[in-house]
Amino acid sequence: MAPTLQSLIAGRWHGKEAATPLHSALNNSLIYHTHAEAIDFSEAVAYARKTGVPGLMKLDFQQRAQRLKALAMYLMERKEELYKISHLTGATRADSWVDVEGGIGTLFAYASMGSRELPSSNVLHEGPAIALGKRGGFAGTHILVPRGGLAVHINAFNFPIWGLLEKFAPSFLAAMPCIGKPATATSYLTEAVVRMAHESGLLPEGALQLVIGSTGDLLDRLGGADVVTFTGSADTAAKLRTNRNLIANSVPFTAEADSLNCAILAPDVTPDDPEFDLFVKEVAREMTGKAGQKCTAIRRIIVPKDRVDAVAERLRERLSKVTIGDPSVEGVRMGALASKDQQRDVGERLALLARGNEIVFGEKDGYKLVGEGVAEGAFFSPTLVLCRNAGSNDAVHDVEAFGPVSTMMTYEGIDEALELAARGKGSLVSTLVTKDTKTAAYAVPVAAASHGRVHILERESAVDSTGHGSPLPQLKHGGPGRAGGGEELGGIRAVRHFLQRAAVQGSPTMLAAVTGEYVRGAAVNESEVHPFRRHFEDLKIGDSLLTHRRTVSEADIVNFGGVSGDYFYMHFDDIAAKDTQFGKRIAHGYFVLSAAAGLFVSPAPGPVLANYGLDNLRFITPVAIGDTIRARLTCKRKVDRNRTDDKGLGQGVVAWDVQVTNQNEELVASYDILTLVSKKA
Amino acid sequence: MAPTLQSLIAGRWHGKEAATPLHSALNNSLIYHTHAEAIDFSEAVAYARKTGVPGLMKLDFQQRAQRLKALAMYLMERKEELYKISHLTGATRADSWVDVEGGIGTLFAYASMGSRELPSSNVLHEGPAIALGKRGGFAGTHILVPRGGLAVHINAFNFPIWGLLEKFAPSFLAAMPCIGKPATATSYLTEAVVRMAHESGLLPEGALQLVIGSTGDLLDRLGGADVVTFTGSADTAAKLRTNRNLIANSVPFTAEADSLNCAILAPDVTPDDPEFDLFVKEVAREMTGKAGQKCTAIRRIIVPKDRVDAVAERLRERLSKVTIGDPSVEGVRMGALASKDQQRDVGERLALLARGNEIVFGEKDGYKLVGEGVAEGAFFSPTLVLCRNAGSNDAVHDVEAFGPVSTMMTYEGIDEALELAARGKGSLVSTLVTKDTKTAAYAVPVAAASHGRVHILERESAVDSTGHGSPLPQLKHGGPGRAGGGEELGGIRAVRHFLQRAAVQGSPTMLAAVTGEYVRGAAVNESEVHPFRRHFEDLKIGDSLLTHRRTVSEADIVNFGGVSGDYFYMHFDDIAAKDTQFGKRIAHGYFVLSAAAGLFVSPAPGPVLANYGLDNLRFITPVAIGDTIRARLTCKRKVDRNRTDDKGLGQGVVAWDVQVTNQNEELVASYDILTLVSKKA
Repeated sequence: MAPTLQSLIAGRWHGKEAATPLHSALNNSLIYHTHAEAIDFSEAVAYARKTGVPGLMKLDFQQRAQRLKALAMYLMERKEELYKISHLTGATRADSWVDVEGGIGTLFAYASMGSRELPSSNVLHEGPAIALGKRGGFAGTHILVPRGGLAVHINAFNFPIWGLLEKFAPSFLAAMPCIGKPATATSYLTEAVVRMAHESGLLPEGALQLVIGSTGDLLDRLGGADVVTFTGSADTAAKLRTNRNLIANSVPFTAEADSLNCAILAPDVTPDDPEFDLFVKEVAREMTGKAGQKCTAIRRIIVPKDRVDAVAERLRERLSKVTIGDPSVEGVRMGALASKDQQRDVGERLALLARGNEIVFGEKDGYKLVGEGVAEGAFFSPTLVLCRNAGSNDAVHDVEAFGPVSTMMTYEGIDEALELAARGKGSLVSTLVTKDTKTAAYAVPVAAASHGRVHILERESAVDSTGHGSPLPQLKHGGPGRAGGGEELGGIRAVRHFLQRAAVQGSPTMLAAVTGEYVRGAAVNESEVHPFRRHFEDLKIGDSLLTHRRTVSEADIVNFGGVSGDYFYMHFDDIAAKDTQFGKRIAHGYFVLSAAAGLFVSPAPGPVLANYGLDNLRFITPVAIGDTIRARLTCKRKVDRNRTDDKGLGQGVVAWDVQVTNQNEELVASYDILTLVSKKA
Repeated sequence: MAPTLQSLIAGRWHGKEAATPLHSALNNSLIYHTHAEAIDFSEAVAYARKTGVPGLMKLDFQQRAQRLKALAMYLMERKEELYKISHLTGATRADSWVDVEGGIGTLFAYASMGSRELPSSNVLHEGPAIALGKRGGFAGTHILVPRGGLAVHINAFNFPIWGLLEKFAPSFLAAMPCIGKPATATSYLTEAVVRMAHESGLLPEGALQLVIGSTGDLLDRLGGADVVTFTGSADTAAKLRTNRNLIANSVPFTAEADSLNCAILAPDVTPDDPEFDLFVKEVAREMTGKAGQKCTAIRRIIVPKDRVDAVAERLRERLSKVTIGDPSVEGVRMGALASKDQQRDVGERLALLARGNEIVFGEKDGYKLVGEGVAEGAFFSPTLVLCRNAGSNDAVHDVEAFGPVSTMMTYEGIDEALELAARGKGSLVSTLVTKDTKTAAYAVPVAAASHGRVHILERESAVDSTGHGSPLPQLKHGGPGRAGGGEELGGIRAVRHFLQRAAVQGSPTMLAAVTGEYVRGAAVNESEVHPFRRHFEDLKIGDSLLTHRRTVSEADIVNFGGVSGDYFYMHFDDIAAKDTQFGKRIAHGYFVLSAAAGLFVSPAPGPVLANYGLDNLRFITPVAIGDTIRARLTCKRKVDRNRTDDKGLGQGVVAWDVQVTNQNEELVASYDILTLVSKKA
């Protein structure tokens, strides 16, 4: 008896009665059912709002990053269970790696980026603050805050685990509860991973719900604080995007749709170059990986007219060596499409692509099936179409066969290649194979206007390349136009997409209170205790020290030159210095920096463990011989990353605002210093 | 005979025959007609694509910033002509100032921000590049490039000049030709400013077109490279947003719609505080400024229950002193609504708001009209509604009377105030009047989730405050939900909205070629000539110097302590230093920085004029006594801002990548230095 999948709604697994049957991609046997019981979406939405949001908001960005990391570790320990289920989708181990470990890896990556880049509060300050008046009383800045709504993540069938986790990770960091809705065909794999996440107990209640089957009236229940993300076909994207309720409430809708991605072989590459082989290998891998069911797969192969036969020859060779069948059999390199429906659909679209074109490689060339009982599986031969008139053929730029099918087309001159690439009307990714930096410098910005990602491949990058088809957590995923116009991933950018940005205006003191960061001009707290002698917990934003003064003498310049070896004429050549904008010798900028440190240092061992960096240093007014400088050091920003050193002592990151001024209270130098400060033992 | 307005299409003024009559807001007299001739939008779009885009792309970001500045100066010289026409819209001089000088000021602001922050090319590198492999051959980064499409800017009737210019400025910097479409009622003012811009000859051909009247099938002709921005009613936004062609091509659509903005008087403010008066003054000004026809106007006045009578009393007092009539008459503080249609509409909506509520101030209280022949003008009395049960009244949060009409409502406790604010379902702006930093720190992040801007007003900020209602070029304008969900302005953010972001992957050498910036690991050019001795024109990205070495001795630490005054225990206390993570004394970080400058300095006068700053300094490996350091200095980024010094000598900004390494080739310190480098005489 094939088990019935369940939805996770309001913290309970829901559904017993079998509804739609789901079949193995490998042999078409019945493996699961969806559930028949309707979901009460008002309950799901209310649970996200009333339980999910408050639970997530009890944690700060740093703590949510920690939870993500713990979840990633929990899932990684159980990955073999997921690989086992993934096999039923027709995927090879390599295909499943992208889904299973790629998905879990995305959690790790967001945990790590969140910990490095986000504050230990729920207000992300997007500074710097800008003075908006002449008297210093009014300034403006931006903050990003949790929206207070929920995220509905709707996914495609091809990556049932990665698809959910890559959307979940940034929205979770942004404190949005998530309702995941996988494509039904492979929803059993999403159910498995959500079950693990739920059992882990690591997520706040209501942070993750799962819908098996239809979304019913879910979208009609959303408001302006919510977000919908979608991966799938352009048609479905268009339908959902115009949902009356989403439009009425300006609910952000991010779409990532299939596109006709391309690979371009640049004119400089000859068949003798290693780049020629790199091109062929990349194309063959992208055609056959995941049986071509990747929204990033190479659908269009754009090659110089005089290289087309050489490329076709080598591609035939490679494709003919691809062993197809049950991926559990040793040596099988390509598995099945996800379902019989997909198999039919790919066949129909191939027919459209082939019209008027040649089939360079296809079914008759080598479709041998390996494995037992797979005759009823959803297999499809790698198929290479050759179009010699791509400039006047619309179908090859419009029709996507979502399987191991690509069309090769020819160009003369790089501009024609770029025009053909743009005929896709917006794609997720293109690969440019070239060994010429000038070609890259010219072509990539042009391609960038219509592609979300551009991958440059040559002998140097090939060593480490993650490949044409792989979105990475650090880099933006999503393309304009046909590709849906959305942006996902791309580091902390993705978290920002799930937050709400607001401009904030007020006095510097108010802005400091709101942002949790010292803003120039805000009130400071001066006390007897040197701020460097306060532990992390005791330090407050605005704790400040105005140092004693120091008069800069010619001897300082002389000595500093001697120690540093810097005898630049502005400091040492009275004659040439007269000709500069300053009209006389000035002290070294780095002397001012060093002397400022001498002014505010607290020499004995104390809570400040290290000054590990410095940001935004600007030398504003030069320091001449006889000038008297002093420094103001103010606690600007504290981030508690919940870290301990090797002795188990807690520590946090503290950034300090430094202003060095002269006897006329003119700003001489301005910068932030970055320190590690220990917590109390 | 009232003149016929013309559209500017494909570089020609189009239209002669009169169509729709437009009337003066002040006396309803006929002042203009729209034109009857249909516009060929295929011609307009083709002209933008084929003439506009190439013309804009011949300039780089810096050059477009210069053109914006020149245009701003040209218009500023002609501002009085615009004020004269603006009078016909019913606006006072102060109202018109926002539109005329606010609009021109936005051009100045974008010219200045563009010059400061954008490169002298057409590729904006959004780094840093990130290593994506272990062997250093593969890295990733992001670039922003012109989309190659056009921007359609659709505007509301209330700010016919600012409305166009605030959208035009960032899209022009982004190299998008613009088709402006003002609301018909006041399109004569937009026509006047476009006529000036066209006559100036400062804009590349095709950079600006103007549509008087309907947009016809314009939106059906756009593609994925284009962008539509809209300011106006939520209903129209919803209609345009679902245009089938825009949806099919994922054309970015940014909406900024009217919203029910609020001002909150915090519980800490008593009638004796100056903040109490500030609140009343701000509310009265926002109610009557531009006769309340601002999408940012205060529609909801949220006050503590026990203060409502005091606030009402003072507001009555203020409103009763507002002189209404022809703004050309001395002393008139409030002009007319834009048209008789608006007058009717505001009246109807007021009726909805007033149902079940009190009218605290309105027509019967003091609607005296000043000026001659204005009886037929579209005037409306300031009107204050008081709702004592706002928690259970939907209309006061939903119905916007787009005129001098606001509703006061009461709360108990700041949480209720914030709940009422959020009942607007997304607004452009809210003002919080409080003198308590804790209240601000609590309330602002909550309000930020549903407001595009939060303005904190108290005695300190009041001195310089630009006011509740004024969007500023530096700060984001636009709110979530009902306010349209769009983002405009906000500094260079706005330019980025009109560019296309792409991730780029490849070898560091390729990324350097594409981004125009040196990327760590890329090939460098070493030569006999010290890079500091090259003029701006001769310097190439990647020009590099690997310096001689220097062994760091105990004497260096001692001397550096003496010169700087920095006797921190890590450098001077052998006993305490044993207890640190390094286990021994290390050199000062600032010594390493200073010694590196000593290694790469070129002492004689040369093209490098000044080192004005330093960014992203990180101390990575500590330097111990006996370690030997050297530095690599590489030309990282060049920006030609087309500036000259006071002697007329050209100069550019050059950023240098500095890597200080030790004898084991470990990175000791890493940073960028910023210099000014002169051009050849």
